[in-house]
Amino acid sequence: MTGRRLKHWGWGWEDQAPTAAQLAEAAEGIRARFGFGGEVRTAVALEDVEVGKSRLKRPEAFGDLFSDSKYDRVSRALGKAYRDVVRGFYGRFEDPPDLVAQPRDCSEVETVLAWAEAEGAAVVPFGGGTSVCGGVEARLGERPVVTMDMRRLDRLVEVDPRSLAARIEAGATGPRLEEQLREHGLTMRCFPQSFEYSTLGGWIATRAGGHFATKETHVDDLVESIRAVTPRGAWESRRLPGSGAGPSPDRLLLGSEGILGAITEAWVRVRPRPQWKAAATVRFERFGEACEAVREIVQAGLDPANCRLLEAAEAEMTGAGDGSAHLLLLAFESAHHPVDGPLDVALAAAREHRGSPDEPRLAAPAHAGEASVLTGRKPDYLTGFRPTNTEEGGAAESWRGAFLLAPYLRDTLVACGVLSETFETAITWDRLEEFHATVMETTRLVVAEVSGAPTEGRGAPLVTCRFTHAYPDGVAPYFTVLAPAIRGGEVGQWDEIKAAVSEALIEGGGTITHHHAVGRDHRPWYDRQRPAPFAAALRAAKAELDPAGILNPGVLLDP
Amino acid sequence: MTGRRLKHWGWGWEDQAPTAAQLAEAAEGIRARFGFGGEVRTAVALEDVEVGKSRLKRPEAFGDLFSDSKYDRVSRALGKAYRDVVRGFYGRFEDPPDLVAQPRDCSEVETVLAWAEAEGAAVVPFGGGTSVCGGVEARLGERPVVTMDMRRLDRLVEVDPRSLAARIEAGATGPRLEEQLREHGLTMRCFPQSFEYSTLGGWIATRAGGHFATKETHVDDLVESIRAVTPRGAWESRRLPGSGAGPSPDRLLLGSEGILGAITEAWVRVRPRPQWKAAATVRFERFGEACEAVREIVQAGLDPANCRLLEAAEAEMTGAGDGSAHLLLLAFESAHHPVDGPLDVALAAAREHRGSPDEPRLAAPAHAGEASVLTGRKPDYLTGFRPTNTEEGGAAESWRGAFLLAPYLRDTLVACGVLSETFETAITWDRLEEFHATVMETTRLVVAEVSGAPTEGRGAPLVTCRFTHAYPDGVAPYFTVLAPAIRGGEVGQWDEIKAAVSEALIEGGGTITHHHAVGRDHRPWYDRQRPAPFAAALRAAKAELDPAGILNPGVLLDP
Repeated sequence: MTGRRLKHWGWGWEDQAPTAAQLAEAAEGIRARFGFGGEVRTAVALEDVEVGKSRLKRPEAFGDLFSDSKYDRVSRALGKAYRDVVRGFYGRFEDPPDLVAQPRDCSEVETVLAWAEAEGAAVVPFGGGTSVCGGVEARLGERPVVTMDMRRLDRLVEVDPRSLAARIEAGATGPRLEEQLREHGLTMRCFPQSFEYSTLGGWIATRAGGHFATKETHVDDLVESIRAVTPRGAWESRRLPGSGAGPSPDRLLLGSEGILGAITEAWVRVRPRPQWKAAATVRFERFGEACEAVREIVQAGLDPANCRLLEAAEAEMTGAGDGSAHLLLLAFESAHHPVDGPLDVALAAAREHRGSPDEPRLAAPAHAGEASVLTGRKPDYLTGFRPTNTEEGGAAESWRGAFLLAPYLRDTLVACGVLSETFETAITWDRLEEFHATVMETTRLVVAEVSGAPTEGRGAPLVTCRFTHAYPDGVAPYFTVLAPAIRGGEVGQWDEIKAAVSEALIEGGGTITHHHAVGRDHRPWYDRQRPAPFAAALRAAKAELDPAGILNPGVLLDP
Repeated sequence: MTGRRLKHWGWGWEDQAPTAAQLAEAAEGIRARFGFGGEVRTAVALEDVEVGKSRLKRPEAFGDLFSDSKYDRVSRALGKAYRDVVRGFYGRFEDPPDLVAQPRDCSEVETVLAWAEAEGAAVVPFGGGTSVCGGVEARLGERPVVTMDMRRLDRLVEVDPRSLAARIEAGATGPRLEEQLREHGLTMRCFPQSFEYSTLGGWIATRAGGHFATKETHVDDLVESIRAVTPRGAWESRRLPGSGAGPSPDRLLLGSEGILGAITEAWVRVRPRPQWKAAATVRFERFGEACEAVREIVQAGLDPANCRLLEAAEAEMTGAGDGSAHLLLLAFESAHHPVDGPLDVALAAAREHRGSPDEPRLAAPAHAGEASVLTGRKPDYLTGFRPTNTEEGGAAESWRGAFLLAPYLRDTLVACGVLSETFETAITWDRLEEFHATVMETTRLVVAEVSGAPTEGRGAPLVTCRFTHAYPDGVAPYFTVLAPAIRGGEVGQWDEIKAAVSEALIEGGGTITHHHAVGRDHRPWYDRQRPAPFAAALRAAKAELDPAGILNPGVLLDP
């Protein structure tokens, strides 16, 4: 924890808010570019936010474990979906937690659970608060709520350099975790878009998607064992590289979104920072051919670290391209050996599908001829961590920059009266073409209709798509929507759009989420997607571990 | 289902039993080689086996769905562990099922569950019956039992060639499944040692280990979605390449060993048969150096299809080597592109650890220059399936031959008075050296002591080790034991050994099973290994889905 405070609404630190002049300039640019976006409004300041009095008396016995300060309560009241950011902007914090607990260790986590259970309060585990599906926002009416912010548990506890594994507390944010691993010449390389603020425990609880576009797509694949505190006692799985002893205990906590227990730490798989890289950007005129290239590359088992396909409009919006072609960003990386070989194979496949690669960009260790840290025989050149691979340059660099800046930019869009949101899914290859066309068309029409905007031409909403992850049997399409906001009615506007596109995802055979989790906002479609007996089993498991139902009620299951 | 019948005890078909002369010759050879093994005894013939009368009256209403024939009951009474084979040899079938049901479709599966529940009977789902941990043997005292043999559900229902996925009924055995996939130029490439007899549903229920030594080590990684029948209704997960919507429903069925539902079919990931191969065998003088080579190769992310390390004694026993060196069998394969590149990198790493590779063996498509089926642009040369890759030749071929013959050989060893069994585990790299030494020493001592044999020299039991699967964070060691059997006391002899070695595995930080499952025999150690809250959750989930507790009682949880 630093002295720097997060904004009480929106993305980032308090000192990162744009000035009035910057906002005015941005609004001008937005209108010029998109043909929509209104005058700049100003967010409601924290001192002007009205929140009800805490319904829980802060217990004095536990020092600073619990807080009822306005800032603490307001800043944990919402996630970071558009509907959250816009409500925060207007100062609408309808269900703030009554208390915020900030435990320092497992024993304090147990204290919080026991105290809340005794008080009849619910407990919402909280990491970076970057949920985009209502995962950290209790909506429990009369029932009091304690939000348990895990970020004081942020230590790297132990490193096993032989097994390339590290034991890390669940509240460590991406930068905090990487900063500590860096001292050991290691990196986890789990870079969700929320990386700067979200935490290891949050990634595990929500099955976050990370750096790798193939193979290790979710944090699931990087988890070796998990510790959690449940109301029925401590949950600790054994550190094992693999096991076949019954259903995996870890896989029940992965994606459990805080309803079974509060994750306190995990052993995760780490690695030396890559020394060799090989990257290229491939232009495609036809989207279908680009899809076929991706399909061939992943089905060939090449496992590129980056294999992100941006539709032309998405490429243009993010500055990665000029909108004249669809772009496939390909990159291989290794801490052990050169990777231009697999890139060549992938590029040959792309060319067969009429892709035009640019000149491959290769990166090798600073001292050529010296081997990687993996061999244990040569010096260690690992330095630093950055969620961006600037070596990749060109389109990839532009795209990655935009990727990490997007959440910041959204606060500005909200101030300028622009609706800005994303949704994502996954689908098998056989259904992709029709699914993609249907979802795009449904979204375009509903966004325009609900927003009172034209469906094409100047002032039409933007709906763009990229593929974030690729599998031998399908891909994860990710959609971005930009539209004129209905000032004061943004939440209803988005909820209507969201319902229509979610229906299209589920009807088309997709998943309601590939890596954004379920939370409260995805419940209606998640409930249709999951097998009914699995829902019953999950409900029974929760009732067993959390008989008073204190843990994150309303997420995944009815409260 | 063919007219050919499985032996009522031991491994394989009835017509595969060795003759008396062959047995006598084998006994001679065994004594000469190992210095133990007694005179040949003859298995109790089926007609001489005594089993109690069925406690369930066969319902007439369902045609041939249920059987109470002696062969049907006896041949499903036991798995294929040593303690099972030896009991079968002696004609000791203590808890045979009262009825054997052989459903043809899901509706008949539902009928069996409903009928059994009404009768107060337990239901044991049965695939190949190749469990080596008591998974198919109900030990329920007075409670009647229906064993539900799933092998009539053996069809390939649907193929999705674009996504490389296939929908296959759960009762399809390895050969049946591959034979049907072959018509589409595809293969699943899941080759557990039981491949010839075990079924897709059995693999999923037990998290079987397959062909690949790295990356896709368990069948878990090949499963896209699962259908099962539970007493509370049908369970069907959505076909998705990846998802982050709550804990994975599939991962709760994977490893559930029949206690939550009967798996009826699955969509699995398949692939074209590999066209390019590159393989080599590397000799190591020191086991520790061989381990380091494996560690470097997997941590480098090379993902060889084969990466099996045989200790010198294991190599000698299986005919893969002469016992003078530890052998690392390395192979890469691809349906898309040549793989000599990654083999070269792996061999360079092996040499750095003082390994001596033989000449690499490369295989390319019959018609050089023509591309793989994966590209969809060239003819398809896929032909046949074989669990062995004869192209690899040499040590790898010898070893694979021995691998598939081992279960057959065991029947002969039992007849000749030789105890023959295996056990397996997984462990992180940091603990491997001490763990391996302790487990080997514990096993050597307890086997000798319990068997009344010398600990070394002529007549000493054999304890050997190989690594079956390798991970960036550890390996899966697999141990084989050969010892003089205590005639008539074999079960007690092995159980005493098993208890001691299982204790060593669990105390040393390993798993009680990497891919043999838990069943009934591993319960005491599994119960210590799993997190207590997970056990409670699993118990609650089962109680919810199977309130009458009819499904495989005693497996994973108390009956």
